[in-house]
Amino acid sequence: MTAPVVAVIGGGQLARMMSPAATALGVGLRVLVEDSGTAAAQVVVDAPVGRPAAGSPVVDLVTGPPTAAVLTFEHEHVPPHVLARVAELGVPVRPSADALVHAQDKIAMRRRLSALGVPCPRWAELPDEAALEAFLDEVGGEAVVKTARGGYDGKGVRVVRAAADVLDWFAAAADGGPALLAEEKVPFVRELAVLLARRPSGECRTWPVVETVQQGGVCAEVLAPAPDLDPEVERAAVEAALRVAEGVDVTGVLAVEMFEVPASGPGDARVVVNELAMRPHNSGHWTIDGAVTSQFEQHLRAVLDLPLGDTAVRAPWTVMANVLGSTLEDLTDALPAVLGADPAAKVHLYGKEVRPGRKLGHVSVSGDDLADVRRRAAAAAALLRGE
Amino acid sequence: MTAPVVAVIGGGQLARMMSPAATALGVGLRVLVEDSGTAAAQVVVDAPVGRPAAGSPVVDLVTGPPTAAVLTFEHEHVPPHVLARVAELGVPVRPSADALVHAQDKIAMRRRLSALGVPCPRWAELPDEAALEAFLDEVGGEAVVKTARGGYDGKGVRVVRAAADVLDWFAAAADGGPALLAEEKVPFVRELAVLLARRPSGECRTWPVVETVQQGGVCAEVLAPAPDLDPEVERAAVEAALRVAEGVDVTGVLAVEMFEVPASGPGDARVVVNELAMRPHNSGHWTIDGAVTSQFEQHLRAVLDLPLGDTAVRAPWTVMANVLGSTLEDLTDALPAVLGADPAAKVHLYGKEVRPGRKLGHVSVSGDDLADVRRRAAAAAALLRGE
Repeated sequence: MTAPVVAVIGGGQLARMMSPAATALGVGLRVLVEDSGTAAAQVVVDAPVGRPAAGSPVVDLVTGPPTAAVLTFEHEHVPPHVLARVAELGVPVRPSADALVHAQDKIAMRRRLSALGVPCPRWAELPDEAALEAFLDEVGGEAVVKTARGGYDGKGVRVVRAAADVLDWFAAAADGGPALLAEEKVPFVRELAVLLARRPSGECRTWPVVETVQQGGVCAEVLAPAPDLDPEVERAAVEAALRVAEGVDVTGVLAVEMFEVPASGPGDARVVVNELAMRPHNSGHWTIDGAVTSQFEQHLRAVLDLPLGDTAVRAPWTVMANVLGSTLEDLTDALPAVLGADPAAKVHLYGKEVRPGRKLGHVSVSGDDLADVRRRAAAAAALLRGE
Repeated sequence: MTAPVVAVIGGGQLARMMSPAATALGVGLRVLVEDSGTAAAQVVVDAPVGRPAAGSPVVDLVTGPPTAAVLTFEHEHVPPHVLARVAELGVPVRPSADALVHAQDKIAMRRRLSALGVPCPRWAELPDEAALEAFLDEVGGEAVVKTARGGYDGKGVRVVRAAADVLDWFAAAADGGPALLAEEKVPFVRELAVLLARRPSGECRTWPVVETVQQGGVCAEVLAPAPDLDPEVERAAVEAALRVAEGVDVTGVLAVEMFEVPASGPGDARVVVNELAMRPHNSGHWTIDGAVTSQFEQHLRAVLDLPLGDTAVRAPWTVMANVLGSTLEDLTDALPAVLGADPAAKVHLYGKEVRPGRKLGHVSVSGDDLADVRRRAAAAAALLRGE
């Protein structure tokens, strides 16, 4: 046999960070990129340019030569009919189209999670404005409206008090745009995430539960593991994630974003699931430096149906801070300052052009003292933002 | 500014392992490879093919566009006149040709180390057979003869008891081949290595002293840190390495291979220097998984004159086992077995065609119990050899 090739759709930083893992394992990586300058295209030798929705670029991606061992993703925006064509060619698609729909369509996700008994916020499909007004009455006058498809990083999410606040989305939906759903605005204590990987054989490994800190709907900071985590909350979070993984038959990495909710009585759910991602996820970037096996290596192992790696932490605490936008022309301009300020900070830059609020890189710092580690990660990220 | 590009001569596994480090730091990598299928060519986007001795491939490598920020190496086999041309173009060569000669020419190395007062075995240049016979008399009848240039991994090294044992080398030397030197066969306790990095500003950081275990002149295993290391030996080893680094004005990673010798009295040297390498080195592969900063990241930082990273260990013990040859057609065939047997083993494959005794990959295992870690690293390497 020769080394297997993993085909990946999407040329951003997630595919970029699969590259070191593929290099170490000696497996090939072939990435379908949006253009020749993307984060992944800069560091992946075999990186054809094409639009996945067009279909034939994906077929070419898996047929090679050599034929790819598996097709996987760094984002969920791939039409099911394209995945069906790949499956017809005999190349496994992992996660499968049937699993992936739960990360593509929030209505499909809520339906399935509700059926599986996974704790969710109260929610409703919104066929019309009347449905939203009825839901607002039910949940006390305020709700979160989401587009079922196409949202990410706070986009496609709006907190509303009346149907009038989302008339544009109703109009778009009537015009063939994404369907809408409403969710109760959960009074949460904090946000948690459970990251796991699952292989086709069913082997499943979770990393420790982490706390995520958002800024304007975008992940800004991850504390690993989540500090002062109530064992009951931890158990509930892991159980919910495993139920999702098995219930939708995920293969590869799954990130389950959750709200921790206050204890209000015995038997009540302590977490509710917010979002799913079926790929390496920002809440798992800390694993590159902070865990024995990174989410990128684990994703490759899982989709290749190889035995999964140890998910233990390598230090008591690891904090990951995102670099969201920068005043610098190029983030490497800050390397002398950031590396000089903290010789133990692990800097990851994505090679992306600077734009306001854009995810341009991240920094991880590990150590014994959470407050110190958190301060240092934030300071390093600030230097990379040009502050 | 745009991201700097590091130009590297040599397309083997050492350049390959620079790639993940360059990806994380967001710096460019441009590698001059021997052919398009080498270990590095498989994973480096910008990898022109050419012979460094021809000169113009190296000039093209640094001129780009864009012009490289620095030229460095994964091996020492580059003629000085080629490096001089690069320096004339205004591109720094790190390590410089003046430093590099001490890793290219063992006679230049022994002269310089002797002048610096660095502990060396007794040695002699061998202009003729009579010089060898005289040296054999001096050291008790047995000596190690080496070719001054071109040797590596046990090649160009022969243990002799008479000039007759190396008549072929004397003939080659007379015919324009490499000059010869003889060294005392040191009665050593074990082999140690000190790895450090130094930047042009003079900042220098050492990793912990390691023990290296050789098989047939090739590094087979590295124990990090060296177990049961006498503090006096440690001090002597680090001092010798720092004296070399400063004395020859190294930039980048320097590996100093040493023999630990028995204590025979107060004031005696406890180590003698065996070999130098001015690049990432096999004795430092453990740093990828076992240290906060890997030798590959540190080499890039050092040659770019960026602040150096923390060299602390990430676990009490890390053992690296080389995969030297294999009965398998492709090493990835063993991934199910090796990853299944030890979920915490970190496997690094080089994508090289299998040949007897060839360095095809390595495995690192970290933990609290040296015997356990050592056994596991050896077991994983054995599976990759097809045993």
